[in-house]
Amino acid sequence: MVTICVDAMGGDSGYEVVLEGIAEALEEDSQLSVLVAGPDNIIAPFCDSHERAMPLVCTEVIEMGEHPATAVRSKKESTIVRGCVSVRHGDADGFFSAGSTGAILVAASLNVGRIKGVKRPALATAIPGATGRKTVMLDMGANADVSNDAIVQFAHMGRAYSKVALGVGAPNVALLSNGEEESKGSEMALDYHRSLKEASDGWFVGNAEGTDLLAGRYDVIVCDGYTGNVAVKTIEGTAKFIVGRVKDATAASKRSAAGALLLKPALKSVAAELSGDEYGGAVLLGLKAPVIIGHGATSALAVKNGALVCARAVRENLVGKIADAVQVAE
Amino acid sequence: MVTICVDAMGGDSGYEVVLEGIAEALEEDSQLSVLVAGPDNIIAPFCDSHERAMPLVCTEVIEMGEHPATAVRSKKESTIVRGCVSVRHGDADGFFSAGSTGAILVAASLNVGRIKGVKRPALATAIPGATGRKTVMLDMGANADVSNDAIVQFAHMGRAYSKVALGVGAPNVALLSNGEEESKGSEMALDYHRSLKEASDGWFVGNAEGTDLLAGRYDVIVCDGYTGNVAVKTIEGTAKFIVGRVKDATAASKRSAAGALLLKPALKSVAAELSGDEYGGAVLLGLKAPVIIGHGATSALAVKNGALVCARAVRENLVGKIADAVQVAE
Repeated sequence: MVTICVDAMGGDSGYEVVLEGIAEALEEDSQLSVLVAGPDNIIAPFCDSHERAMPLVCTEVIEMGEHPATAVRSKKESTIVRGCVSVRHGDADGFFSAGSTGAILVAASLNVGRIKGVKRPALATAIPGATGRKTVMLDMGANADVSNDAIVQFAHMGRAYSKVALGVGAPNVALLSNGEEESKGSEMALDYHRSLKEASDGWFVGNAEGTDLLAGRYDVIVCDGYTGNVAVKTIEGTAKFIVGRVKDATAASKRSAAGALLLKPALKSVAAELSGDEYGGAVLLGLKAPVIIGHGATSALAVKNGALVCARAVRENLVGKIADAVQVAE
Repeated sequence: MVTICVDAMGGDSGYEVVLEGIAEALEEDSQLSVLVAGPDNIIAPFCDSHERAMPLVCTEVIEMGEHPATAVRSKKESTIVRGCVSVRHGDADGFFSAGSTGAILVAASLNVGRIKGVKRPALATAIPGATGRKTVMLDMGANADVSNDAIVQFAHMGRAYSKVALGVGAPNVALLSNGEEESKGSEMALDYHRSLKEASDGWFVGNAEGTDLLAGRYDVIVCDGYTGNVAVKTIEGTAKFIVGRVKDATAASKRSAAGALLLKPALKSVAAELSGDEYGGAVLLGLKAPVIIGHGATSALAVKNGALVCARAVRENLVGKIADAVQVAE
């Protein structure tokens, strides 16, 4: 039996959606139990009516807009802090929340702790690819500034995650840059390139461009968290722009409206692919237990998948594999 | 009468497409004449049969894959080098090419020359926005590393371009970063933020995120060329991914196929908006004459619009306005 803690108050969609996702995860995985973090009046009825759901009563909630470090320091009874503490105490094997990314980062770094030898935890996600091959992208924003040593660790951690989460045998790694040629890049990217090349025994395959992110060409793409955050949010914004334009067209013409209606299932599935609902969110790599961060505008499906991905990471010993990868590389 | 030079050999779509675009531009603008750069056998028949088209015979072509600096140095008779030289000699008032961005950057910097006081030319483009408001984005990749002084100049140049090309009265400027809060950013972005804030008399409005690029929230968004290039190519890749997924769906289901057929005009118009065909390409700001770079996979429409934007920049004295903006700011 694997126990994970799920933050019932995370995300902008309301706790009902999160609880529905937990219920679905429990139904799908009979070897899973969930520690549900939230106010007593919300979680008690849920835990009473669901097997393998246990309450973790919390009296505070960190809101999306709060300053992460300040909120984590002052709200010790919040679902995010208590959830991370439950992992440290061994009451749970992993943590899932669709709450504030910044607050989860701070609380998890403080309370779950880093794997020995890991310089910086990184935020990774498996983004879809045109070819069907998914690409693990990191860092998506945990670290705005990243040293050469840390970028090499990101490559190792990304490879370990690609193996565990996607079942890739020997994942390759590319560096996000402003051109494929080795000579392309900012001073920072050129340094990263040299460090990755030096560290690689064949897995580093050179520079990737922005057009490669959703092309399914690489198993892992690494970059600093500033660039990764810009790229991930640009994907999100572009998808939103296109969907908006299609909606405008359907409002302007009956022909387009009919087309959009017929295409709706296809458009919805692309939107879901890009929203992260399918893969359950982003994972913080480098910590002593799996911590998964769901998209703020979450859905029951995203919560279910996030919880199941978290359980899978526990069962397949993601943390042990990352520890091995980092240690072997040192 | 404005004379611009157009590279007949630029782009991956063949010279026929470029010549068609030139013909359309000449037809639309009776006060425009075009110096057509290309091999004699291609351009002579075109110039013979079109009024206000004059030949600039070139015996070499720089291919898309060539190393920019090497190609510009060795191919003095290429359309790109000769085109830039024609501007320096005053035979043309501006230059348009859909050829290698890198080679045009090098050739234009060498031959057209920088405006006095401009530290680095920057590649700018007006990207569409959900609200209908367009956003001038720069640098899209001319400079992988950008100093604090240069980013402030980019803001001034972007504002001048927004006024001339989009008619915005008092353009505001945001900095691309990994969060809206002032505290967010890499060390580089935090430095940029401070410099922009210091230089601004009200036009700097803070950080923008990747989701803002196509949202039509800001008049100008500045960043270094490494990040800008990643962002622009991520937009391109995301659009391609979504179009591909819609195609997959139409192949898999008759319902989706019917929907896609009905929605085709709408989808095509979004694709055109994002491809840059409508705004004619990217413009190199900071040079002594307008130099416009079209998308490699160009269309006749893109060439036509690129030529017309170039002519408009000449007529509205974009260069003088940038010179003023940069000088006033010093």
